[in-house]
Amino acid sequence: MKSLILISLGFISASLHAADPLPSWNDTAPKQAIVAFVKKVTKQGSSDFVPVPERIAVFDNDGCLWAEQPMYFQFFFAMDRVKALAPQHPEWKEKEPFASLLKGDMKTALAGGEASLMEIVMATHAGLTTEEFEKAVTDWITTAKHPTTGKLFTEMVYQPMLELLAYLRANNFKTFIVSGGGIEFMRPWVEKTYGIPPEQVVGSNGGLKYELRDGKPILIKLPEIAHNDDKEGKPVGIQRHIGRRPLMAFGNSDGDFQMLEWTTSGSGARFGSLVHHNDSVREWAYDRKSHIGKLDKGLDEAAEQGWTIVSMKNDWKTVFP
Amino acid sequence: MKSLILISLGFISASLHAADPLPSWNDTAPKQAIVAFVKKVTKQGSSDFVPVPERIAVFDNDGCLWAEQPMYFQFFFAMDRVKALAPQHPEWKEKEPFASLLKGDMKTALAGGEASLMEIVMATHAGLTTEEFEKAVTDWITTAKHPTTGKLFTEMVYQPMLELLAYLRANNFKTFIVSGGGIEFMRPWVEKTYGIPPEQVVGSNGGLKYELRDGKPILIKLPEIAHNDDKEGKPVGIQRHIGRRPLMAFGNSDGDFQMLEWTTSGSGARFGSLVHHNDSVREWAYDRKSHIGKLDKGLDEAAEQGWTIVSMKNDWKTVFP
Repeated sequence: MKSLILISLGFISASLHAADPLPSWNDTAPKQAIVAFVKKVTKQGSSDFVPVPERIAVFDNDGCLWAEQPMYFQFFFAMDRVKALAPQHPEWKEKEPFASLLKGDMKTALAGGEASLMEIVMATHAGLTTEEFEKAVTDWITTAKHPTTGKLFTEMVYQPMLELLAYLRANNFKTFIVSGGGIEFMRPWVEKTYGIPPEQVVGSNGGLKYELRDGKPILIKLPEIAHNDDKEGKPVGIQRHIGRRPLMAFGNSDGDFQMLEWTTSGSGARFGSLVHHNDSVREWAYDRKSHIGKLDKGLDEAAEQGWTIVSMKNDWKTVFP
Repeated sequence: MKSLILISLGFISASLHAADPLPSWNDTAPKQAIVAFVKKVTKQGSSDFVPVPERIAVFDNDGCLWAEQPMYFQFFFAMDRVKALAPQHPEWKEKEPFASLLKGDMKTALAGGEASLMEIVMATHAGLTTEEFEKAVTDWITTAKHPTTGKLFTEMVYQPMLELLAYLRANNFKTFIVSGGGIEFMRPWVEKTYGIPPEQVVGSNGGLKYELRDGKPILIKLPEIAHNDDKEGKPVGIQRHIGRRPLMAFGNSDGDFQMLEWTTSGSGARFGSLVHHNDSVREWAYDRKSHIGKLDKGLDEAAEQGWTIVSMKNDWKTVFP
């Protein structure tokens, strides 16, 4: 009899273990907080119960779902496009930031900061139809390699976050990306990579012009910003695209501060969380002084705001798939 | 034996009848075309089969899902707000279009056309937080009555279109609104009325500003247009919000022309349709010369474009629920 009970317990324990939806997370506070939150908002009759249509979870992309060092990956795409387009733009040899970029001098090329970045992105993204741009992104994302790891960029997604996305969807959450990155840069590959469909991607986007070319309608990308989905722009993008306040928000930098602030100041149970890049062995360690993905204010205010800091080093068993 | 067969046939016929997903549609060409299209794109192994994630159907709102005469219903909301806000705006007594509007002289108030309309909408919609605006819409939509029918505006939705929305969703389509109307004017009531969640509403929208008020984050509506979701703006709105080309598009005016054009020029099977308001008894009859919901180019080009014209008079058994 005792052995039967032991066998049963063993079986139950094995089942529970097999059913762990977040196997790449260590059993530390963040995992426990996530699971406890999901349980309470999905439990019928709980005072924190949230109906299915309101179960919205938003995720930053760069540094939250995939890596972002030494530079946002979209920039590598833009750089590769500058090289490919250079023969059609002889003037770039003399014109910054393109001249330095073509010489491989990234430091000078980006000395102008955000403005230089934006000029490069505009010059390489605008003028194409949305279909041409989608093809350019698809070709690039399936072949280009990260400069130091040599991996495809889509191999540099975070396994714990893939599990988290699947876990939330299994609990009838709708998962959205809310990123400062370009909406049209993300859509061609995020469905396959994260299981997030194009209509659930919120991001920065440029002007679009509808016109007929040879009798066929096209949408042309214009060299102008329609929405900058960063910082204060994130709650704006959320309101515009989703139209309701998320229940959960995950980010990693001060660019996500307002998204978490907006999310967690809603009524009822809410969850805000920041991934802290502190694992120099398996990924990169950076926070308060980083140019890319700076996390400073978020670290200072997380405790007061009730946000969960995820230590990549301590809380993640595995980083990449 | 014969009676048994007859009983069986009777039973089968009754079942088929009971299962008709579009009972308010007459069994005329438009209903047949819709059902034939849905069957072919959802049939596994069919050369026209479309995977579930790509089953996107878009619907105009004014004049397509609900009525729009004698004026877009959002304008009645704006007018009621002008009256309510008038005590705080003594200058409106002298200032057009407000002065005429407050005197009940709609004709003079709207003599400036779109510009007057826009000025009224801006003055009555901006300055509120998104939450205040949502409350104002909800209060209004649950109490305000249509000037000639005396019905709640949400009672002036089209029963055949409600059935169509449900039928498409039962076939795993995602249904979206793509309207020239204000996105924040629609979202508070379309989920309950049409079963369309806020995140599947595309519409015109104004600027939003994120800020802290008494330490609490708010989004304030600004008096500026961020996107005009009409005509060429509809494919732009679709691309920005949905990110893929719809499979089916339903509209009723020339403001929907480009949405149908964009939809039906995609590869593979596509479906475009326009509701023709030609029923002066049960609704209103208007088309080529109407100020509201003008349908002229669409009627001329429907045959060549392969679009289905739905005659409200002949193809709908019932108009309102």
